[in-house]
Amino acid sequence: MTELNQPRKMWADDNCNPTSDKRGEVSKGGECESMLQTIDNVWEPSQARKLGPYFHDGRRRIDYVLTYTVQKPVSMSPTSSGSFVRGLRQSLSRSLRRSTSSAQDDPENASELGCQEDVKRVRREEFEDNLMEMGLELEKDEGTKIPGVGFLKIHAPWDILCREAEFMKLKMPTKKVYEVKSASNFMEKISQFFNKMTKPLQPNVEDSKMETIKHLSYPFSREKQHLFDLSDKDSFFNSKNRSLIVHGVLKRTKCVRGKHNVGLISLLGNGVYTSAYPLHDGDVEGINAEPNDRKLLYDEWARYSIFYKYQPIGLIRKYFGEKVGLYFAWLGVYTQMLIPASIVGVIVFLYGCATLDDNIPSMEICDPRNNITMCPLCDRVCNYWKLVAACGTARASHLFDNSATVFFSIFMALWATMFMEHWKRRQMRLNYIWDLTTFEEEEEHPRAEYEFRTMQKSVRVDSRRERRGKPKKKTVKLTCTDRMPAYMTTLVMMCFMICATFVVVLGVVLYRIAIMTALQLTQTPATNVRATVKTTAAIINLIIIIILDEVYGALARWLTVLEVPKTDKSFEERLIIKSFILKFLNSFTPIVYLAFFRGRLVGRPGSYIYVLSSFRMEECAHAGCLMELCIQLCITMLGKQLIQNNLFEIGIPKLKKMLRRRKTGMDTQEEELEKKLRRHEKDHFLGPFIGLSPEYMEMIMQFGMVTLFVASFPLAPLFALLNNVIEIRLDAKKFVKELRRPLAARAKNIGIWYTLLRGISKVAVIVNAFVISFTSDFIPRLVYQYMYSPDGTLHGFVDHQLSFFNVSHFRPGTEPLEPMLGNQKVEVCRYKDYRDSPWSDTPYDFSREFWCILAARLAFVIVFQNVVMLMSDFVDWLIPDIPKEINVQMQKERTLFVEMFMKEEQGKRILWNNQGESPCQPRSRRISNNI
Amino acid sequence: MTELNQPRKMWADDNCNPTSDKRGEVSKGGECESMLQTIDNVWEPSQARKLGPYFHDGRRRIDYVLTYTVQKPVSMSPTSSGSFVRGLRQSLSRSLRRSTSSAQDDPENASELGCQEDVKRVRREEFEDNLMEMGLELEKDEGTKIPGVGFLKIHAPWDILCREAEFMKLKMPTKKVYEVKSASNFMEKISQFFNKMTKPLQPNVEDSKMETIKHLSYPFSREKQHLFDLSDKDSFFNSKNRSLIVHGVLKRTKCVRGKHNVGLISLLGNGVYTSAYPLHDGDVEGINAEPNDRKLLYDEWARYSIFYKYQPIGLIRKYFGEKVGLYFAWLGVYTQMLIPASIVGVIVFLYGCATLDDNIPSMEICDPRNNITMCPLCDRVCNYWKLVAACGTARASHLFDNSATVFFSIFMALWATMFMEHWKRRQMRLNYIWDLTTFEEEEEHPRAEYEFRTMQKSVRVDSRRERRGKPKKKTVKLTCTDRMPAYMTTLVMMCFMICATFVVVLGVVLYRIAIMTALQLTQTPATNVRATVKTTAAIINLIIIIILDEVYGALARWLTVLEVPKTDKSFEERLIIKSFILKFLNSFTPIVYLAFFRGRLVGRPGSYIYVLSSFRMEECAHAGCLMELCIQLCITMLGKQLIQNNLFEIGIPKLKKMLRRRKTGMDTQEEELEKKLRRHEKDHFLGPFIGLSPEYMEMIMQFGMVTLFVASFPLAPLFALLNNVIEIRLDAKKFVKELRRPLAARAKNIGIWYTLLRGISKVAVIVNAFVISFTSDFIPRLVYQYMYSPDGTLHGFVDHQLSFFNVSHFRPGTEPLEPMLGNQKVEVCRYKDYRDSPWSDTPYDFSREFWCILAARLAFVIVFQNVVMLMSDFVDWLIPDIPKEINVQMQKERTLFVEMFMKEEQGKRILWNNQGESPCQPRSRRISNNI
Repeated sequence: MTELNQPRKMWADDNCNPTSDKRGEVSKGGECESMLQTIDNVWEPSQARKLGPYFHDGRRRIDYVLTYTVQKPVSMSPTSSGSFVRGLRQSLSRSLRRSTSSAQDDPENASELGCQEDVKRVRREEFEDNLMEMGLELEKDEGTKIPGVGFLKIHAPWDILCREAEFMKLKMPTKKVYEVKSASNFMEKISQFFNKMTKPLQPNVEDSKMETIKHLSYPFSREKQHLFDLSDKDSFFNSKNRSLIVHGVLKRTKCVRGKHNVGLISLLGNGVYTSAYPLHDGDVEGINAEPNDRKLLYDEWARYSIFYKYQPIGLIRKYFGEKVGLYFAWLGVYTQMLIPASIVGVIVFLYGCATLDDNIPSMEICDPRNNITMCPLCDRVCNYWKLVAACGTARASHLFDNSATVFFSIFMALWATMFMEHWKRRQMRLNYIWDLTTFEEEEEHPRAEYEFRTMQKSVRVDSRRERRGKPKKKTVKLTCTDRMPAYMTTLVMMCFMICATFVVVLGVVLYRIAIMTALQLTQTPATNVRATVKTTAAIINLIIIIILDEVYGALARWLTVLEVPKTDKSFEERLIIKSFILKFLNSFTPIVYLAFFRGRLVGRPGSYIYVLSSFRMEECAHAGCLMELCIQLCITMLGKQLIQNNLFEIGIPKLKKMLRRRKTGMDTQEEELEKKLRRHEKDHFLGPFIGLSPEYMEMIMQFGMVTLFVASFPLAPLFALLNNVIEIRLDAKKFVKELRRPLAARAKNIGIWYTLLRGISKVAVIVNAFVISFTSDFIPRLVYQYMYSPDGTLHGFVDHQLSFFNVSHFRPGTEPLEPMLGNQKVEVCRYKDYRDSPWSDTPYDFSREFWCILAARLAFVIVFQNVVMLMSDFVDWLIPDIPKEINVQMQKERTLFVEMFMKEEQGKRILWNNQGESPCQPRSRRISNNI
Repeated sequence: MTELNQPRKMWADDNCNPTSDKRGEVSKGGECESMLQTIDNVWEPSQARKLGPYFHDGRRRIDYVLTYTVQKPVSMSPTSSGSFVRGLRQSLSRSLRRSTSSAQDDPENASELGCQEDVKRVRREEFEDNLMEMGLELEKDEGTKIPGVGFLKIHAPWDILCREAEFMKLKMPTKKVYEVKSASNFMEKISQFFNKMTKPLQPNVEDSKMETIKHLSYPFSREKQHLFDLSDKDSFFNSKNRSLIVHGVLKRTKCVRGKHNVGLISLLGNGVYTSAYPLHDGDVEGINAEPNDRKLLYDEWARYSIFYKYQPIGLIRKYFGEKVGLYFAWLGVYTQMLIPASIVGVIVFLYGCATLDDNIPSMEICDPRNNITMCPLCDRVCNYWKLVAACGTARASHLFDNSATVFFSIFMALWATMFMEHWKRRQMRLNYIWDLTTFEEEEEHPRAEYEFRTMQKSVRVDSRRERRGKPKKKTVKLTCTDRMPAYMTTLVMMCFMICATFVVVLGVVLYRIAIMTALQLTQTPATNVRATVKTTAAIINLIIIIILDEVYGALARWLTVLEVPKTDKSFEERLIIKSFILKFLNSFTPIVYLAFFRGRLVGRPGSYIYVLSSFRMEECAHAGCLMELCIQLCITMLGKQLIQNNLFEIGIPKLKKMLRRRKTGMDTQEEELEKKLRRHEKDHFLGPFIGLSPEYMEMIMQFGMVTLFVASFPLAPLFALLNNVIEIRLDAKKFVKELRRPLAARAKNIGIWYTLLRGISKVAVIVNAFVISFTSDFIPRLVYQYMYSPDGTLHGFVDHQLSFFNVSHFRPGTEPLEPMLGNQKVEVCRYKDYRDSPWSDTPYDFSREFWCILAARLAFVIVFQNVVMLMSDFVDWLIPDIPKEINVQMQKERTLFVEMFMKEEQGKRILWNNQGESPCQPRSRRISNNI
């Protein structure tokens, strides 16, 4: 609170001769008066303005803030040192740097902390001078309220904004408006009706309403200023665009370091600055909260109570930029698309429930008259058992293994395609509305680590070349050879971690087998054994998945750092690919094992397969593994979402914030003091924005859960939907309240995530084909019904599935201790497999039925995969990527522009004519005719 | 020759007051002097210039020509009629039109031919007036040398070119050049070496050499004129760009017709103008041939003797525009990529030849000691036969059915992916070099038919609304309802034609069966029978394919016309899809039948399947149908290419040209007179450019042949390569010499053709998987070797393949007349199938081996398809779509521009400072500090 009453020092140079000071700010023509006015007029800012994102004069807006650490907050007054002293210091530091050959941030000086700080300050000063030369206006705020932290506040004046907007080809709305009309009257009425219907679902935000009129946009150009409505210069560029422009200048501004130019990214990486961020618009709660976009977002978006409403995407984009806007738009589309999927999923599940009692195979199993003796489930200690004991699981399996499941798999494959298509169209529409259609990716600057490594390399190369008398090389790049060790490490580590995943799954399997055997030895009842083992194993799996997820995330980051990618984009992509592979395998290996391997490598009675030479491989319950797969999926999905949402997304950020407060010495008692902090100081306490990757990754994994094994778990979309409805508001809260404002990065699409989504939905088709044909009993039932059944029904299917085993063929020492079941001596027991009977020519060989059913299963996979892929491709081709009305509007805009410019041309011509300025008018009717 | 000496009439209005005549041409400022000079200076054009593409003054270039029919070449002098008469005529015709409510081109007047001609002339005059208002300069040439044809020559003066280039955002090279450098020294040396190596392969054209320096390009803007090198205004816009610009103006210019505006396309459609084309640069041969781009293309591109050279793509694009350039670039890439494919294909074929004698199955078949008696091939008349008789075909089959084939299929699937990727990169590189990266598709104007239909509809709608007292509707569009009859027709016709294709194939099959039976009845030797039938059937097939191809092409066009698509682009796409489906089915149905159905629906001895209740379905030769498939492919491919190339591409155009000459009364004796014709008259005799679709379609079909059944015919790529080497030069000759110059349409990609290519290469993977697993004996051999063979070799495979048949089970009346073979009575004969033996429990049922092999076949399909698709996707993902160096260069260009503009800014600032013009300079060091 003290600095508000302090006298402020401000250099206002009245000398009008620009040549005397090179750093002087030059503005041209019309802007001049207003500038002077701003400075002359002693304008006392209001309390709100003082606390808002403004310079101390309360007029100039802070467009960007850089922070740095201040060591001696009292003795320093860096800007008051004259230019002579600064020049001396700079030349000194430069010679110092040259002598140390630019090694790791001048390590010779590292021993003297103060000296290092000095070097940093000198570099800061150089950077600030360069910024001012670029035309930005700066204000410093060193350790006033938050000890040890200095703020460099940056303001871009009008002419700089104009210049940069022109360079960036920023599309701005022109004065020209036109009416956006639907194609026909009928369509218009429908859309009006739809708008009326969804009125209560629309957020209470202005921009979601007026859709009938659109401003034509045109790349900003000072030569075409007359096109734009410049009546309010303060708001022509909104805070998002201002920060984007300033960020552009910051990126371009270079510091000389050795023979290399280093930019802001390197300065941030070397600790010269600690962070860089644009400011939030204002408070969201409390007495100081004036109406602003942030508050509006908080009220109309970041609240759980309005979970049923659409998101105000336009406003999100206006505040956070296109990249964040696209994420939330994507999340919205995904969530919306989950609604039909969950409805169909629930119907499929209900169908399973309804047909429970009509299911012939489970009726037959539960019928005690079918007196079938099954072979024992474990060696020696287990007894023969009656098939009727499997009645419960057989009935439960039917819930997830019925003919509706096949339909649902096909539906979900098409759903995934529809979702991708829908998103492509939505993205295109947003691109059009947000004027990004002609936006090109900007050049990215090298990362600090990369610059450091190239610097090291160039020193090495140069010294080698110098020895050989060759000239120095101009540019040095990191080649594959330089990165080879890192690549090898990555390869080895990735292989190792993938193996680790497999080992973990194997470990859980062994745990299950061991516990099962142990429990069976103690003669616990069979159902209890199974239930206990299943549940504990699934929970262990879940815990391991969550732990490994975090470990793999960290490892992937470490590996990517080792590779020293050139740009942030490349860094992000490499990181995403690595962590996607690891996390994906981590989440899905146990499920894949359950679906495709469990119960298949068992062997047969008399020649079981043993692991560790004593444990028999685990079998599935009689009705197949689908039930267990379902349980595993359910636990993984619910558990992961609950734990990750609650713990990681809510708990840990809170903890971090608390720690950050404690670190800077702010106690909880001082919280009310916080209200009197200025905007940039408040934002300093918020968490830094670390990118959208974790959010996307979570959703992609969920998308995998929803599509990959949907054949075995039709309720997955419902769970995902419930989670996402919360997730949207959770993320919204985080972005609006908990995090510093992210740079409003522009982006046309969601980049690599789309590729991953496509990949998953392709894999999903194959996985579902295999689940239906191999994990479920769908195909055997079908084959039985049409090839073997005497009456064309499923009666007798259960018997057909079971092969015979002569108990005298048990390997010695593995036969059950009790050779009786009830009071009958068992001579032949049954097991679930298609094998020849003991009395055939080829006992226990795979029977003709086995091969026939295998062929049918494989044929189904081929047909399913190709039909679904064909249908997906057809849907893809049928739905144009660019919505028709957008295409029409884009063409209309182009025509309007040509018309506008033609009119302008004619206007000019008339002007000339009226003024009589053009000296000659060759008005010959220039048509000549030869007859 | 007469008109050169005639006095020319030219309206040169000296009156400088522009208001008196609305049609006057106004040019501004700087351009004025040069204009006047051009007109004042009485410059006598040279003979060459007179015959070249210039106005009669020999100065102004003809950028575009419209032609129209002239009825009374003597009595008419349309431009001499004063403005009063013209006005009268216009108002008259307008009222006429209003009264007839714009029905089919004023049908009331159709009876009076002269009157209709008058209406057309009036409309032409209106259009010409509008063109002049747009600033174009016109010259007319009516029926001077070619009776009945009028030419409207159009020239765009400099300021119009500038204005339109600005509207079109035409990217033009600036003065700023920069060095294009390879990434590293090493790469540079490699590329230099490569360039030196390929020197003799490079065409002798300038632009293919200097690649190290590139002009920065920037959208042309009159405000930024200083960026461009405008020293030679005549050549700044080359003839391609000039014609493009004029075409843009022509498209925008409208004629009023009723209440509708109709553009050039409608005028062409209604016969007001007969054709519109830009002019060629000059002659390619003869004494008048000055060096020009067309001649250069003729010498360095359109000659068979330089078939081994690269194409001068840059020059092609410069002369014909980007669309044509892309076609030839694509064709070049395709041909180039065929080289490795043909080499591998030849190696695979040679491998088959080399291993011919090591092949155990064919050795066993040819071994007379294996005394296997086969069941007869037809009912009653055919005898039992010895397997050794199939020796020849078995050996021949091995050429195409060996393990190398599987490898080749995988190779070709990856090859197709590589080709697509390579093309994507090449396309991107061309986009960059041709400055198309920011090019957006232009709005297309409705086709004449569409405009006419909407006009009809609006009349209908309006009269209906008028009756109900509603206001008139502004815009009327064709909806789905309007098009429904056409869609239904299309659907029905397409289904009908697809059925027709199937029927034709069935017909050929029946022909084969019938002839076969007939020949067998006459006791012709078996080998002769087979050879005769196979060859005649394949030739009949080929002829039918070629005939139906033409029929389908015409039908597809007719159906598309019925649908009245809105734009030319939509018309083209619909036409392409239709004719692609039809032609594809037409070409591939016989082949698909051979590969997958023939020999499979035969039944078994004792229960054969009969068609038409008397003919047994045809069987394959013992070694499978692969051999026949191969012959069919070979004949189809060679025959199609030879006939279509020679007859359709060379013969028919020549014929057409001759006819066109005869029609206009030019006899062959007058050919030397042609040399004295002017450019636009010469071009009039050339064939009109009808688009690239036929060329692309031919190539796509060939691509299908090369990839789809490559498993059965490894020489296909070689045949395709040989064809394409000729095709390129053939097309080149056609474009340079035979056709009118096409409009230099801009395009970023090859559009729908890429989609079709992708589709084919996807289908190819599946088809090849099926060919390998079902048509060839690869899988049965493998299964035998690893599951049934006693010693792990193929010994005994032939015996294993054959089932037993008890001859007493023949259906009565079908047993052979001769129950003996040699001097033994046959009791059991063998046939190729996996069935149970007559003495088993289930005689003649499919055996366990059958199901086992079927499962193996299906498993192979799944594995092959997914592995190859995965590999393709991986290759796709691995190779970036945008070449790295192009990315780097694009970013570099952007940086260079910002630097350039920043320098400009500073320059301006310094200028101000030196002139002291800016009244005030707020030079405050705007950094303030709060401590």
